[in-house]
Amino acid sequence: MNPNKKAVVLLSGGIDSAVASALANKAGYNLFGLSFDYGQRHKVELTAAKKIADHLHFARHLIFPLPLNLFGGSALLGDSEVPKGRTDSEIQTGIPSTYVPGRNLIFLAIAIAWAETLSADAVIIGAHTIDYSGYPDCRPEFLDSFQRSANLATKAGTEQRLIRVWPPLIHLGKAEIIKTGSELGLDFSLTFSCYDPDEQGRACGLCDSCLIRKKAFQAADIPDPTLYR
Amino acid sequence: MNPNKKAVVLLSGGIDSAVASALANKAGYNLFGLSFDYGQRHKVELTAAKKIADHLHFARHLIFPLPLNLFGGSALLGDSEVPKGRTDSEIQTGIPSTYVPGRNLIFLAIAIAWAETLSADAVIIGAHTIDYSGYPDCRPEFLDSFQRSANLATKAGTEQRLIRVWPPLIHLGKAEIIKTGSELGLDFSLTFSCYDPDEQGRACGLCDSCLIRKKAFQAADIPDPTLYR
Repeated sequence: MNPNKKAVVLLSGGIDSAVASALANKAGYNLFGLSFDYGQRHKVELTAAKKIADHLHFARHLIFPLPLNLFGGSALLGDSEVPKGRTDSEIQTGIPSTYVPGRNLIFLAIAIAWAETLSADAVIIGAHTIDYSGYPDCRPEFLDSFQRSANLATKAGTEQRLIRVWPPLIHLGKAEIIKTGSELGLDFSLTFSCYDPDEQGRACGLCDSCLIRKKAFQAADIPDPTLYR
Repeated sequence: MNPNKKAVVLLSGGIDSAVASALANKAGYNLFGLSFDYGQRHKVELTAAKKIADHLHFARHLIFPLPLNLFGGSALLGDSEVPKGRTDSEIQTGIPSTYVPGRNLIFLAIAIAWAETLSADAVIIGAHTIDYSGYPDCRPEFLDSFQRSANLATKAGTEQRLIRVWPPLIHLGKAEIIKTGSELGLDFSLTFSCYDPDEQGRACGLCDSCLIRKKAFQAADIPDPTLYR
């Protein structure tokens, strides 16, 4: 690994950012993991993020405090109930109440700032759209536009030292993402997907995120190590 | 004033954001001021911001904690000395060491998030480029690109409820900005510009920001109420 090839990776503790990290490892990047304590009700995901950062030998892992709960506006910030037991077609329609206003715009902006101070080459995000979450800030057209904004905003960009916004999973479905992680030896028992865990940190099994996870493990024909309550 | 016409304004405590706020007031906006406690060495500017928010009858003023000093990379974050006594041509050349990586990208992203939860129509920023600060994230080409990124990232944007990124000062020089504020009755004694105040909060009179301020008041033929040390 080239010690000068650095990337900041947005690490949520879920499957997507873990697989994106494993792919970035394979591509020779030294990884600087960035997680956010943003008032999410599933704060237990930060424990998962820390374990994944250790498992994948990150150079550093930072949990950045970001009190988006000052604004509210999302079921994930505790402003309404997390929807449960939705059908596939309900999940695939519209923008869910778990949408957090501006989340990836903010997360990517902060990642770009850290990448610039580290002289890193890339910011990595586990966004994908085939098995669509309904979040507008996971779409390739947003990521392309953000790349241009980041180039214009930064000293690095004006000096032609591009910080690449790289979404390595953008063209993969969720089952393919799991297969990819499995091939790379990722320990999925470290990952955490649930939006609404209980006080013991156990996954609900019924929120959109749990349902998408279960279905994808089944489609990939790989056992899901999650202990659902 | 229409109570439903809301805008989030980035309020630093300096002249530009105060004049931008006064213009937005005049345009009939209810203002929600957003300031950042981002590890800046001139944290005293937040006291100025609070006074300006009161003076201009903001609906609300929020100081958002954002520890960019975790990353460093700027004289304003204490990583190097603030340059003093530079000539006009030095100030107008290149990107100064007071550049904070990703600052306006992050500030605008967080402002968009608040604006979306408030159902606000606009995010207002006091950026301008005629008397150039050297900061790439104040340029119109960046702001135009950010507008597009924000539209693509948000639920509001996908539903054609545009949150306009409005830089009302973008085509004004610094002396014109001061004249505009003066005509609007703005009390400039509440504003604070210095990058490197002493422990009593007095302006140094020698950093780029103090020098640009002094020169602009002279050019506008308006007395600068600042007490320089």
